[in-house]
Amino acid sequence: MSRSPWRREVRARARACVYYIPQISRCCLLECAEETIAMTTRSPPPPPPFNRKRARRQELLCVDVSGRGGASADQWRRASPHRMNPAAQPLLVQDVQGDARWISQHERFVQECKDAEPDVLFIGDSMIQLMQQHEVWKDLFSPLHALNFGLAGDTTCNVLWRIQNGELQNIQPKVVVLWVGTNNHQHTAEQVAGGVTAITQLLISQLPRAKIIVLGLLPRGEHQNPLREKNAAVNELLRSSLARLDPAQFLDVSAEFVQSDGSILKRDMFDFLHLTAAGYQTLSKPLHDLLLQILEETTAAK
Amino acid sequence: MSRSPWRREVRARARACVYYIPQISRCCLLECAEETIAMTTRSPPPPPPFNRKRARRQELLCVDVSGRGGASADQWRRASPHRMNPAAQPLLVQDVQGDARWISQHERFVQECKDAEPDVLFIGDSMIQLMQQHEVWKDLFSPLHALNFGLAGDTTCNVLWRIQNGELQNIQPKVVVLWVGTNNHQHTAEQVAGGVTAITQLLISQLPRAKIIVLGLLPRGEHQNPLREKNAAVNELLRSSLARLDPAQFLDVSAEFVQSDGSILKRDMFDFLHLTAAGYQTLSKPLHDLLLQILEETTAAK
Repeated sequence: MSRSPWRREVRARARACVYYIPQISRCCLLECAEETIAMTTRSPPPPPPFNRKRARRQELLCVDVSGRGGASADQWRRASPHRMNPAAQPLLVQDVQGDARWISQHERFVQECKDAEPDVLFIGDSMIQLMQQHEVWKDLFSPLHALNFGLAGDTTCNVLWRIQNGELQNIQPKVVVLWVGTNNHQHTAEQVAGGVTAITQLLISQLPRAKIIVLGLLPRGEHQNPLREKNAAVNELLRSSLARLDPAQFLDVSAEFVQSDGSILKRDMFDFLHLTAAGYQTLSKPLHDLLLQILEETTAAK
Repeated sequence: MSRSPWRREVRARARACVYYIPQISRCCLLECAEETIAMTTRSPPPPPPFNRKRARRQELLCVDVSGRGGASADQWRRASPHRMNPAAQPLLVQDVQGDARWISQHERFVQECKDAEPDVLFIGDSMIQLMQQHEVWKDLFSPLHALNFGLAGDTTCNVLWRIQNGELQNIQPKVVVLWVGTNNHQHTAEQVAGGVTAITQLLISQLPRAKIIVLGLLPRGEHQNPLREKNAAVNELLRSSLARLDPAQFLDVSAEFVQSDGSILKRDMFDFLHLTAAGYQTLSKPLHDLLLQILEETTAAK
C-alpha cells in the first residue's frame, strides 16, 4: 500500500507522456509548415546555395523549358569557370504577384527574335529597359537596328536563364550591350562580377562573331552607402576579368554621376538609381560613339 | 517479482518521457525561431495584423519622426473610419537594400514643400513618379505649377506615412491627384479601397480647401489575371465610397487599356504595368481637362 501512491503517479506520468509526445511533435511540425508556407507567399526565395544535384535539375529545366533551341546548359557549364558561383546559376523569376508579367515579357522577347534582325542587342535589367522609354533610344540607338531585352529587377541569374531559353534564337547581332548586376543584393561583389563574366562568356559562345560591350554598374543612393562601394568593387573586378576576354569591352561611366560632395543629383537619377533623360544623355554619348566605331569596323572587315 | 519487468518498463518510460518532452519542445522552438529569422532576412516584413498597442506606437512614431508639423496621427485616426484596416495603417518603408533611397526621396519631397508653392500636387506610387519622366509632364502638368511626390513601390500605408510626416507641410495646393493601390499585394480589394479612402479623408482634413482627384487602378499583366480582377474590384468600391466624399472625384480610365481580346499592348504598358509615353497620353487628356476645369472653378470662386 505504501508504494501505491508512487505507482499511481508513475502510471499517470507514463500515460501522460505517451499522449503528449506525439501531440507536441504534431503541433511543432504544423507550426513550422505554416511558417514555411507564409514565408514563400511573401517573397520570391533567394537563389539557394549551390548544390550539384539542384544545378543539374536547373540545367535540364533550361534545356526542357526553352524548346526554342536555347543554349544547352551543358555548353554553358563547360564555357563557364563559375560553376560554384550562385550569381552564375540560371534562375527563372517566380510569379509571386500573380500577373505573370516577367514570363510575358520574356516570351515577347523570344517572339521579337523571330520577327527582327537586329545589329545591336541591349540586354539587362531596368537600366536597359527604361532606356527605351527615353528620346535617346529613338534618336541614337533605334536607328542602329537595336532590340531592347531589358527586364526590371533582373539579376545576373535571371539574364542567364533568359539567354538560355530562347532570347538569342534566330538573331545574329553584331554587338551586344550587357548591363546587369545592381539587383544582385544577395551576392558579394566577387560573385556579381563572376555572374556578369559568365553571361559574357555565354554570349561569346552563342554569338562568336559578335562584340560584347559590358556597361559598368552605376553608383546608387543620394549619398555614400555600402551599395555604392559594392558596385564600384564589381566594376574594378570586371575591368580586369573582361580585359582577358577579347571580343568583350568594358565601358564605365559611373564617375560622371557623382558630384564633388559625393552626392547624386535628382537631375541625373530621379530616384537615386534610375536615370532621367539627362542621365541617359550622359551615358549615351560614349556608348553611341563606341557602337558606331564597332559597327564601322565590322562593316569594313567584310 | 512477476510485476518487476512491468515496473521496470513503466519506470523507464516515465524517465524517458520526462527527458524527451522538454527536448522536443526546445528543438521545435529553435526550428520555428530559425524559420522566422531566415524569413525576415529575405524580405521586408509585411504590415503586421492590426494591434491596438502597436498602432498607438506607430502613431507616436508618426508624430515624433516628422518634427515638421506633419498631421497628428490622432487627427487622422479621428478622421478615419478604417481603424481596423491594415491597408490604412501608416508604414515607413524599411531600407532593406542599404542605399536609403526611399527616405532620401521622402526628405527631398519635404524640402520641395518648403521651396515651392504648387497649385497641383501629384502623390502616389511609380505610376505617378514615372509620369514626370515623360513629355506629358513638361507639356501639360508642369505648367499648372505641379509637384510630383510619386515613389515607386509605395502602398497606401507608405503614402499615409509620408503625408503624416511632412509632405503637406507649408503647401496649399488647389488640387491633389492621388494614384496608389496597385502595390498593395498583401491586402484584399476591400482593404485597398479602404486605404485609398483613408488617404483621401486625411487629405481633406489637412487641405480643407483643396479638391482631390483619385485615379482608378489600371489593369496589369498582358492577359487576364487575378490582379486585374482585384484592381477592377478596388475601382468599383472607390466609385461608391468616393461619391460620398464631396471634394473628392474619381477618374477611371482603365477601360482605355484593354483590347477587345482582353490583352494589354506593349505600346501602352512597356512591362504590362507601367505606362509608355503613349499610355500616359491616353491618361493625360481626361486628367488634364479635369484639372483645368477645377482650377478655373477655383479661380472663378475667389
